[in-house]
Amino acid sequence: MEKLYVIKIGGAVIDNKETLKAFLSHFAAIKEKKILIHGGGKLATELATTLNIPQRMVDGRRITDTETLKIATMVYAGYINKTVVAQLQGIGCNAVGLSGADGNVIRAHKRKDTPFDFGWVGDIDKVNNDFIEAFLNKNIAVVLAPITHDKMGQLLNTNADTIAQEVAKSFSGRYAVHLVFSFEKNGVLLQVEDESSVINELTLCKYNKLKEEGTIFAGMIPKLDNAFHALQNGVDKITIGKAEHLLKLIMGGSGTTIKNE
Amino acid sequence: MEKLYVIKIGGAVIDNKETLKAFLSHFAAIKEKKILIHGGGKLATELATTLNIPQRMVDGRRITDTETLKIATMVYAGYINKTVVAQLQGIGCNAVGLSGADGNVIRAHKRKDTPFDFGWVGDIDKVNNDFIEAFLNKNIAVVLAPITHDKMGQLLNTNADTIAQEVAKSFSGRYAVHLVFSFEKNGVLLQVEDESSVINELTLCKYNKLKEEGTIFAGMIPKLDNAFHALQNGVDKITIGKAEHLLKLIMGGSGTTIKNE
Repeated sequence: MEKLYVIKIGGAVIDNKETLKAFLSHFAAIKEKKILIHGGGKLATELATTLNIPQRMVDGRRITDTETLKIATMVYAGYINKTVVAQLQGIGCNAVGLSGADGNVIRAHKRKDTPFDFGWVGDIDKVNNDFIEAFLNKNIAVVLAPITHDKMGQLLNTNADTIAQEVAKSFSGRYAVHLVFSFEKNGVLLQVEDESSVINELTLCKYNKLKEEGTIFAGMIPKLDNAFHALQNGVDKITIGKAEHLLKLIMGGSGTTIKNE
Repeated sequence: MEKLYVIKIGGAVIDNKETLKAFLSHFAAIKEKKILIHGGGKLATELATTLNIPQRMVDGRRITDTETLKIATMVYAGYINKTVVAQLQGIGCNAVGLSGADGNVIRAHKRKDTPFDFGWVGDIDKVNNDFIEAFLNKNIAVVLAPITHDKMGQLLNTNADTIAQEVAKSFSGRYAVHLVFSFEKNGVLLQVEDESSVINELTLCKYNKLKEEGTIFAGMIPKLDNAFHALQNGVDKITIGKAEHLLKLIMGGSGTTIKNE
């Protein structure tokens, strides 16, 4: 099967101009079909603070009220998405930036408000593979912002890791999908402070053990849960590692590879 | 030749939820191929004020410094563009929202800084007709934000009227292009305060006379100069009028029609 790269970059990579530039030059160098999903970065939070829009969090998740959704749409689908696309165009990589509403590319529904109302947060129903594939077939990279819609006129805020996973899964029948979660760290670490303690290979069994021991914790858990879920749903390969090492990550020379037993 | 509608909506239409809704329901009802170009509205100016970013104007034109470009990108390519696309999707009109950087759809260059530096303002070099046409051929409306790029990594701010005109001209060989400038007024007025004084037909000769007399003035002049320029460059038909009357404008039952002698 033909290869497809689905690559997610985290917020901290976007916040740093030099890191972003290094990442994008690696991304542009990938010859195969490719999709980029970007997170949010600090800009949305900073803007909300400057505009005096209080940010409510529950269990580490942001509540997306109407004003917060407006900011997310401006920052994610506007500033970050278009800055990334313009920079890719500047280094010779043709790209198109999309929100989930564009071409109905990611349809979602507002998350049920029990036990808690997260506001305008969208859980994904369907990825429009044909729409994405038309770009890929023309050698145009697709850059997705973490904003979806419900096809009833409402934009929704959706976690970028979840989008990456759902997009990867949705293409798994058509392509050998390599899903890459790239961020500011070298990979999944045995000691959180020690960047040299990267776990090179992680099976579900090993993951469960490390989770039980408390070695893997906090923000890494939903990321890895997502990764194993994607693997069990047909995604060919998953790598987690440093954004500036993207080409090495892809070739297996860096980061953590998630694999079945 | 097949018909293509290139329709621009002004900022005041976007600022009013009900007017925008009425306009979009008309736009969605157009059966032929269609492109929508939207302006900015008050939101960008309001955001700049709230963020204490001073807005400098020269001859009624905004100077686009780095912070102002950031706001324009957030508001135009982010919030407005995605809100319009989501609303169109909600009423059954498939649409895709693009900035000029997406698919390199509108390449521009920074305006020369003599006699005055307008900042990050882009003058258009090339419209990528093939990229737009691929959507139109799939019955997907294209929604363009007034943000372009220079293909060297820089986003640029470009007047929405100018984009509408250049897009219309660029398609004039392939389609019978009907360019519509829709805004909050009934059309070009003989008395600026009297909405019933619409000039139904305007030739270049009549325009020059009204301009000389001072009957047509201020913001209407660049709009009409653009319109006549487009007409002289192969655009089939141009109408100026009220956004909520879009279907009537298209059928000639409302607004001002600009025509050759």
